[in-house]
Amino acid sequence: MTSIGFVGIGNMGLPMVRNLLKAGHPVHAFDVRGEAVTDAVAAGATAAASAAAAARQGDVLITMLPNSPHVETAYLGPGGVLEGSRRGLTCVDMSTIDPATTRRVGAELARVGARMVDAPVSGGVPRAVEGTLTIMVGGDDEVVAVVRPVLAVMGQNVVHVGPLGSGEVAKICNNLLAGVSMIAAAEAFTIGIRAGVDPKVLHQVIRTSSGHCWAIEHNCPVPGLAPKSASNQGFAPGFMTDLMAKDLSLARAAARDLGVTCFTGTLAHELYVLASRHGLGGKDFSAVIQLLSGEGGPRRV
Amino acid sequence: MTSIGFVGIGNMGLPMVRNLLKAGHPVHAFDVRGEAVTDAVAAGATAAASAAAAARQGDVLITMLPNSPHVETAYLGPGGVLEGSRRGLTCVDMSTIDPATTRRVGAELARVGARMVDAPVSGGVPRAVEGTLTIMVGGDDEVVAVVRPVLAVMGQNVVHVGPLGSGEVAKICNNLLAGVSMIAAAEAFTIGIRAGVDPKVLHQVIRTSSGHCWAIEHNCPVPGLAPKSASNQGFAPGFMTDLMAKDLSLARAAARDLGVTCFTGTLAHELYVLASRHGLGGKDFSAVIQLLSGEGGPRRV
Amino acid sequence: MTSIGFVGIGNMGLPMVRNLLKAGHPVHAFDVRGEAVTDAVAAGATAAASAAAAARQGDVLITMLPNSPHVETAYLGPGGVLEGSRRGLTCVDMSTIDPATTRRVGAELARVGARMVDAPVSGGVPRAVEGTLTIMVGGDDEVVAVVRPVLAVMGQNVVHVGPLGSGEVAKICNNLLAGVSMIAAAEAFTIGIRAGVDPKVLHQVIRTSSGHCWAIEHNCPVPGLAPKSASNQGFAPGFMTDLMAKDLSLARAAARDLGVTCFTGTLAHELYVLASRHGLGGKDFSAVIQLLSGEGGPRRV
Amino acid sequence: MTSIGFVGIGNMGLPMVRNLLKAGHPVHAFDVRGEAVTDAVAAGATAAASAAAAARQGDVLITMLPNSPHVETAYLGPGGVLEGSRRGLTCVDMSTIDPATTRRVGAELARVGARMVDAPVSGGVPRAVEGTLTIMVGGDDEVVAVVRPVLAVMGQNVVHVGPLGSGEVAKICNNLLAGVSMIAAAEAFTIGIRAGVDPKVLHQVIRTSSGHCWAIEHNCPVPGLAPKSASNQGFAPGFMTDLMAKDLSLARAAARDLGVTCFTGTLAHELYVLASRHGLGGKDFSAVIQLLSGEGGPRRV
Repeated sequence: MTSIGFVGIGNMGLPMVRNLLKAGHPVHAFDVRGEAVTDAVAAGATAAASAAAAARQGDVLITMLPNSPHVETAYLGPGGVLEGSRRGLTCVDMSTIDPATTRRVGAELARVGARMVDAPVSGGVPRAVEGTLTIMVGGDDEVVAVVRPVLAVMGQNVVHVGPLGSGEVAKICNNLLAGVSMIAAAEAFTIGIRAGVDPKVLHQVIRTSSGHCWAIEHNCPVPGLAPKSASNQGFAPGFMTDLMAKDLSLARAAARDLGVTCFTGTLAHELYVLASRHGLGGKDFSAVIQLLSGEGGPRRV
Repeated sequence: MTSIGFVGIGNMGLPMVRNLLKAGHPVHAFDVRGEAVTDAVAAGATAAASAAAAARQGDVLITMLPNSPHVETAYLGPGGVLEGSRRGLTCVDMSTIDPATTRRVGAELARVGARMVDAPVSGGVPRAVEGTLTIMVGGDDEVVAVVRPVLAVMGQNVVHVGPLGSGEVAKICNNLLAGVSMIAAAEAFTIGIRAGVDPKVLHQVIRTSSGHCWAIEHNCPVPGLAPKSASNQGFAPGFMTDLMAKDLSLARAAARDLGVTCFTGTLAHELYVLASRHGLGGKDFSAVIQLLSGEGGPRRV
Repeated sequence: MTSIGFVGIGNMGLPMVRNLLKAGHPVHAFDVRGEAVTDAVAAGATAAASAAAAARQGDVLITMLPNSPHVETAYLGPGGVLEGSRRGLTCVDMSTIDPATTRRVGAELARVGARMVDAPVSGGVPRAVEGTLTIMVGGDDEVVAVVRPVLAVMGQNVVHVGPLGSGEVAKICNNLLAGVSMIAAAEAFTIGIRAGVDPKVLHQVIRTSSGHCWAIEHNCPVPGLAPKSASNQGFAPGFMTDLMAKDLSLARAAARDLGVTCFTGTLAHELYVLASRHGLGGKDFSAVIQLLSGEGGPRRV
Repeated sequence: MTSIGFVGIGNMGLPMVRNLLKAGHPVHAFDVRGEAVTDAVAAGATAAASAAAAARQGDVLITMLPNSPHVETAYLGPGGVLEGSRRGLTCVDMSTIDPATTRRVGAELARVGARMVDAPVSGGVPRAVEGTLTIMVGGDDEVVAVVRPVLAVMGQNVVHVGPLGSGEVAKICNNLLAGVSMIAAAEAFTIGIRAGVDPKVLHQVIRTSSGHCWAIEHNCPVPGLAPKSASNQGFAPGFMTDLMAKDLSLARAAARDLGVTCFTGTLAHELYVLASRHGLGGKDFSAVIQLLSGEGGPRRV
């Protein structure tokens, strides 16, 4: 079995490690937080002393980190992946970051003969647990072929989007849609409920009409309507408001660099930033409904 | 078979009439535009001289009109439905209008013993043609029971939402989501395509991820990706930009009256109004991508 | 001296009544709240039993009310101004309302020979107290000539804008600008202060540059920078958030009816509505900075 | 007289050079475009062969460039200012750029003993011509004291904001307000004019009310109302739409880095980007009214 180095054992990383272990892969785990490594070890992984060590011990090195600067540090900083890299190592960055950073890190790795793909994911913690993530991969055909069996352990839908960085672009575009439609869903339900419509019926109507979207089906901001929604569990993430704000910030930056508009994404970004300022940053992004209603959620549900 | 009076033979009304005729219902058709009546007659309907006449000749009187003032005039104006109403008549307003107007018209009809439901639809012209509309019905149980067999001819999914006016509320909430996510889809694809990602792959990714929404699946603003999309036919409607602007205006008004926010709906409303000022009012609402790209659509597709 | 009937003795109405009394006008005051009449009487007015009575006792009847429905009721409802109207009475509605309501009320008054102007004001409570309001008047030349001396007691700048209703249009356009630039000022100062710039220097720079606006000079959302700002007094109004939301709602409605865009006004409207939901509705509209900062104001000031 | 090196002879730089020459300063001019240098020489400057040469020949080296990357290249690139720097040289960057770039360039200059201030300006081409710019200066007291007499030749209002980078922060905050209120002004006038109010009267009202702002007084988007407005000259800049978009992009980036909201600035940014996509990028930023009206400007003016 392919030996895996894994850097970044957070809400997403830990269940991904569990699925790799369950599939029989030895996993060498590192995180800057010691207790995160402890969690991985409890699940059956062995502890790595640094990102470089994890890279040395794995055939494939996977990173799952919050944002571009963390990825840059984990790969290129002291004790980073680059120090443990060599010809034959394949790196898979599953973080959602700026595609330009992806390409810069990939170029550094190429200088020592290591190869890289970007492979950000969609689906949040529930699908990371189930091993049913959607994974958007950017990289050369032969490198993607190498890592595909490993990715298939964590995700049910592994799509090769294009060259290095393309996975990130696809992820950013996807999350732009997800972040905007969550807010639209929150506002639509708030209006409907305040106008006296039964939320269950409203949900049933929208599910089968042109207002249908992922949030309605899988992460409804109104509790009690869709199974597995974070709203059913007090908005425990799931996918945190601060992470959605980060992804929308990446979308804005991409739009700016390309000279195109991003009206909806920028409005949504501002609202998630405001939600964060009002204490909702660590909750699931569907908690934006609490900011909008101004009272911890719609009155009637 | 139930005899139908039908007022309002437009892009939506005409295929609805055709489906009623095909199911064996005699239809008495009226429209303020004579040529619209001619179309209905060519399809097998008989011409009615006025809305009042259509009401007199039908057991069920259906209206399908652009907005609140047209409904008010068609029911309460000279030669209107009210003049042809009596105990035993059931009126079905399938227009998307302000719920307050619905309730006012319903109260007037009740004074002469006629009954009313509101039954706005979702799905646009293609599903009107197929008879597979989603229909959101507001009204008393026994009245809804009377008209349900007739509605089932035009729609595949007939949902009783609640009391009179509730159908309109549900429709407005649904279209708020539909109108917002269309613009988010247009911006997401514009970013992705300009960043060099193959639109077909991007489409495939988003379809199976958290960015999924009705527009992606059924009316993609980028041509060549989803069958039956208006963008595949030069943005021929479908559901016109000006109608979407109208529905979002209803959502804004509802939010204002309820004292709740509608950030996403108001931004979308402004963009559809701007699209209309730039000549796109009569095209499908997915044509908003042409406004946003500033060049008749994204360069690469 | 011209005898005045005055209906609506609120935060604005009371100081206006005081200025009329000080200038020697007898004032017959009415308000639906009895204690408001008591305040006016304490200032030297006589109490009127109804709006109709105030109209009967005055040569000029002034109204200063929250919104269109209040004006409609005060003029056309039971015991309203219309009942006390006759040839020779001149009515001056100084409320900020929908211009269509203005014209409808004016038409009813004309049927009994009374005349009307609309005369909404700008400047808030401080300038109402000083008698230095800006007053925007809509009406026929000769009617405006009649009321101008009375208006000059309350305002320093009395502008005849055009025919009946034009005062309201001008007021709505003005407040659209005021409401938007307040939020832009709040965001600009929040950015500058968090970035470490001394707010006093920042204020001095913007005052003399292209960012200059009324809020900067007269009602700065950051305390300690501009004299008489509501922020200096814990955001005591001044001009309440809920009233600004109302005026922006009128601007949106006007834009919708005219088929033109109102991007900035609608965004500002949503933010004031959200501020209201977060408990700021009764504070000065500059308190929107507290919503935006998420902590009762920027940290450093 | 202080000898000046001047890099960046564009719409702004050329009149600034003229004022320096008129005040008796020898100017050594460089621009990457040869014809720009020719313009400066025609005005009385001498040509410098590179930014480094301009730095060598001046006691004070001034740069006036489009954005952060141009500044980085002009100072730190091959043949750049750094190559011509030495103890005793004072650099003045009058460009509007990212404050972080300012600080990075300043640190490089400090290593060779040269000193730096940032000194972005407000007022556009007309006030550059008159020598009445507002200049926002960031830097140490003694360095600011050195350059103040030179700055006084170009601007009437020279404000020392704080340490290096503070001038940029102040400029960005100011332009956020300027960019937002221009769009609000455009929308307010479009509404008022379409509603039938005389634009001259509307202008007079807003000037003296709470809607007052710099755009109303100095650069009104409706032609014929304010002297020296770009709209009076077919929207010839003035201050170009693309530059305003750039400045608002800097404001957004600052807000993002600080974790605060920028609702108004981001909406305005999107609208200027859209205006640029519709061909208005090279016109004055007040031309955004043409985008909004959808017809090259409001119908009635």
